[in-house]
Amino acid sequence: MRMKVKEIAEIINGKILGDENIIITGVSGIKEAKEGDLTFIANKKYKNLLYTTKASAIIVGYDIVNSVKATLIQVENPSLAFAKIMSIVGPEPITFPSGIHPTAIIGKNVSLGKDVSIQPYAIIEDHVKIGDRTVIGACVYIGHYTEIGFDCLIYPQVVIRERIKIGNRVIIHPGTVIGGDGFGFATVKGVHHKIPQIGTVEIGNDVEIGSNVTIDRARFDKTYIGNGVKIDNLVQIAHNVYIGDNTIIVAQVGISGSTIIGKNVIIAGQAGIIGHITVGDNSVIGGKAGVTKNVPPNSYVTGFPAREKWEDMRFQAYTRKLPELIETVKSLEERIKQLEEKIKEKDGEKVAKND
Amino acid sequence: MRMKVKEIAEIINGKILGDENIIITGVSGIKEAKEGDLTFIANKKYKNLLYTTKASAIIVGYDIVNSVKATLIQVENPSLAFAKIMSIVGPEPITFPSGIHPTAIIGKNVSLGKDVSIQPYAIIEDHVKIGDRTVIGACVYIGHYTEIGFDCLIYPQVVIRERIKIGNRVIIHPGTVIGGDGFGFATVKGVHHKIPQIGTVEIGNDVEIGSNVTIDRARFDKTYIGNGVKIDNLVQIAHNVYIGDNTIIVAQVGISGSTIIGKNVIIAGQAGIIGHITVGDNSVIGGKAGVTKNVPPNSYVTGFPAREKWEDMRFQAYTRKLPELIETVKSLEERIKQLEEKIKEKDGEKVAKND
Amino acid sequence: MRMKVKEIAEIINGKILGDENIIITGVSGIKEAKEGDLTFIANKKYKNLLYTTKASAIIVGYDIVNSVKATLIQVENPSLAFAKIMSIVGPEPITFPSGIHPTAIIGKNVSLGKDVSIQPYAIIEDHVKIGDRTVIGACVYIGHYTEIGFDCLIYPQVVIRERIKIGNRVIIHPGTVIGGDGFGFATVKGVHHKIPQIGTVEIGNDVEIGSNVTIDRARFDKTYIGNGVKIDNLVQIAHNVYIGDNTIIVAQVGISGSTIIGKNVIIAGQAGIIGHITVGDNSVIGGKAGVTKNVPPNSYVTGFPAREKWEDMRFQAYTRKLPELIETVKSLEERIKQLEEKIKEKDGEKVAKND
Repeated sequence: MRMKVKEIAEIINGKILGDENIIITGVSGIKEAKEGDLTFIANKKYKNLLYTTKASAIIVGYDIVNSVKATLIQVENPSLAFAKIMSIVGPEPITFPSGIHPTAIIGKNVSLGKDVSIQPYAIIEDHVKIGDRTVIGACVYIGHYTEIGFDCLIYPQVVIRERIKIGNRVIIHPGTVIGGDGFGFATVKGVHHKIPQIGTVEIGNDVEIGSNVTIDRARFDKTYIGNGVKIDNLVQIAHNVYIGDNTIIVAQVGISGSTIIGKNVIIAGQAGIIGHITVGDNSVIGGKAGVTKNVPPNSYVTGFPAREKWEDMRFQAYTRKLPELIETVKSLEERIKQLEEKIKEKDGEKVAKND
Repeated sequence: MRMKVKEIAEIINGKILGDENIIITGVSGIKEAKEGDLTFIANKKYKNLLYTTKASAIIVGYDIVNSVKATLIQVENPSLAFAKIMSIVGPEPITFPSGIHPTAIIGKNVSLGKDVSIQPYAIIEDHVKIGDRTVIGACVYIGHYTEIGFDCLIYPQVVIRERIKIGNRVIIHPGTVIGGDGFGFATVKGVHHKIPQIGTVEIGNDVEIGSNVTIDRARFDKTYIGNGVKIDNLVQIAHNVYIGDNTIIVAQVGISGSTIIGKNVIIAGQAGIIGHITVGDNSVIGGKAGVTKNVPPNSYVTGFPAREKWEDMRFQAYTRKLPELIETVKSLEERIKQLEEKIKEKDGEKVAKND
Repeated sequence: MRMKVKEIAEIINGKILGDENIIITGVSGIKEAKEGDLTFIANKKYKNLLYTTKASAIIVGYDIVNSVKATLIQVENPSLAFAKIMSIVGPEPITFPSGIHPTAIIGKNVSLGKDVSIQPYAIIEDHVKIGDRTVIGACVYIGHYTEIGFDCLIYPQVVIRERIKIGNRVIIHPGTVIGGDGFGFATVKGVHHKIPQIGTVEIGNDVEIGSNVTIDRARFDKTYIGNGVKIDNLVQIAHNVYIGDNTIIVAQVGISGSTIIGKNVIIAGQAGIIGHITVGDNSVIGGKAGVTKNVPPNSYVTGFPAREKWEDMRFQAYTRKLPELIETVKSLEERIKQLEEKIKEKDGEKVAKND
């Protein structure tokens, strides 16, 4: 790349603080940046790096006005602005030309939209519908009667079983399995009998699902993933779970059966949520939290068993005081002993006096 | 569907409380049920829903005799009975016709049973044996010398490496890997040398294994999964682990090398068990528990480090008392101070008197 | 197998304590060993088994001189020595002959080294480079411009996306995904906009990666896995993570974005590490630990939030004392009450006297 700061600022509608004629020749993170690079700060944690970075220009929020060597470009959302520049100057994205590869296997009564791309060794079973411009990656398996919307990108080796519904502009990363049987057994005299999982999975629009995720089909009715939901790698979503719009689920989270997650919830990495409960809208579940009961809307819960964050932190603070507390109690015990002895002494004196 | 309650009760051998002539037109969960639906209650947690559900008939246990609007059908095991009805009225299950797809690659000396189904792009290496009516899904890889029993269902993109033995009626969901190398290294002067994992994996009859599970092959001898074991998604089972019959392992559990799990054990989601220990028969390991030492039979352990559930709960209760305890100790300290001062005063008086 | 102890000792350069002419007919673990077997002890935990094992010969360290029925073979590293014998007497390893299977799909401008093996249904996109003797397993997908070194073994159904660099002698187990998009979104008015992940993944030499692992590509620059790193199954490594040489990461660990892990670190199973922190060289992270802040070199941290192990253990010990502490405080309260009453009594006496 070779652009002036001025040109960059125009693209992202930014305000320049510093020399607008500096030539930018690359983009990178603020720590790794070298002379000629454009970088950005979204996380205040890195604010000190403004003074040490070798970057020649830095995209920042309007709150940052520090006088530094680099030219600053102020914008409303530095992450988004930087992303825009990256998509312009970054390596050309890999695209998959439309058309059906001759090795792809297409079943009967399959409906394919305009400009669909079906990559090598993909297997599309009977009665599947795929929308316009959707890409089905290599070795992907799409089960019978499944419907996928338009402008979706299904990466290699995804398995989507039968009767699943997937919206538009959905991205599914490699190795993910949608619609495996829910984990349900009826145990009679120690033997576990499989309960048929005749429901399905329904996924809204603009959903992104990471690699090696598992989303099970419902026992009946459906497992539901709302519009705009973003799911990271290795997440487990059990049967009949409902996830509201725009919720974010970080890697290795597990959500047990029939639990309802509200809208705009954030579930941090490795958290686990038991079955048959409700997590209210706009709540945040901390990393590694174990949620064992309903969470009201707008909550922030952490720890295991999960409780309100302030309560969990207070608890953490109290436990840190335990050693001191034990010492205090020991010394109090000693002081009480001395008091008791003194009182006894006095009683002795008194008795002596009264004699 | 369109069946009278009477007909349904006959199929599941149930006792009717209410109108036996009501027409059932669908099945669903008790919360989502609408008029004309059949539903069920297996979990007492939902007992209150008896009064609010719109379902027209409800399969219940013999302990439920409530007088409600819907007709009740009493049976011994509501889950199982409902499952039976679902399998009759549910969507026709997807089946895979027997035969070898022309794109499947079959090695030398492969023995295939009667009516085996080998789906597109499946790869069966040399010397493999597959039993009658077993289905090998699309893109499945079966390594050399592996033996799979009859009536198994191996979903797309499963990898089963060489020399594995799998019993009859085993279901393996997509993306699962059986027989990857155990994780073992000998470290000499900071360099980790791979220890060959020349053992295998043996899986009993009637086992079900979820999606994206990993079960490693043994260092020598075998990793063993007993008859009737049910394993949920994203579970990790390390080399030389032994799992007894009918044990249930919920999603995202990890079991470290050489650990022995007894029969009829339940291991809840995200629990972890260290290596080289034994978990006794009929034990329950709570969700997210971290088991660091042997667990006797018939135990119920929770928490991390895991201990008996009652002990863990008592501990939880005690920690909840910590804030109060700290306040109490503070006030005791104050009272002791006052006592000490009073005693000193008296000593003063006494001294004064004696003067 | 059929070898004399003498012959075995020669191969591993061991010192014999006992009968050197015993015939060995098999190898196994010390618990499962039967007469005629060779076994070993690496973990002192099993030292007692020296007396009960039925093995005829045991490879041990120089520190073990016990007089037992079996012949001992002393070596410096029993694990490594036993591994050497196993690789000689174990089942012949499965090998994949060099050559390109006719069903493999090779893109344009692909550079293949000498004696490369490309297995059935592998898909190699344009501009890929693969080094000498590397095996690309069945159904593996290698994205555009990716480079893989020599003597690598990529198991079936691995996905390696575009522009990834992988060193020499790297082993990747089935189902693993290298180079999925990092999980990054810029949220504007509740809508999560995808941040392009234009970076890559770079993996050093002699790395081993387990089954169903996910290693995300960087936002920019690269996610880095150093030389000699060993990664177990179902591990999540987020975008822009840096992992130093010879670090070991056990199953189901999750490492969040931009975190730096030093050299020779051990991260035990199910641990989680938040983003944007540094874990120093030679540190150990305990199983299930949740690391929330920087860890200095040579640390051993455990628990959640993770702290120094001794501190965590002290904390565990203190919490075990909680029930007793609560009892103590109760009894102190009682004693203080009695003291207060006695003092009051005396005051009463005094007042009475002074009346």
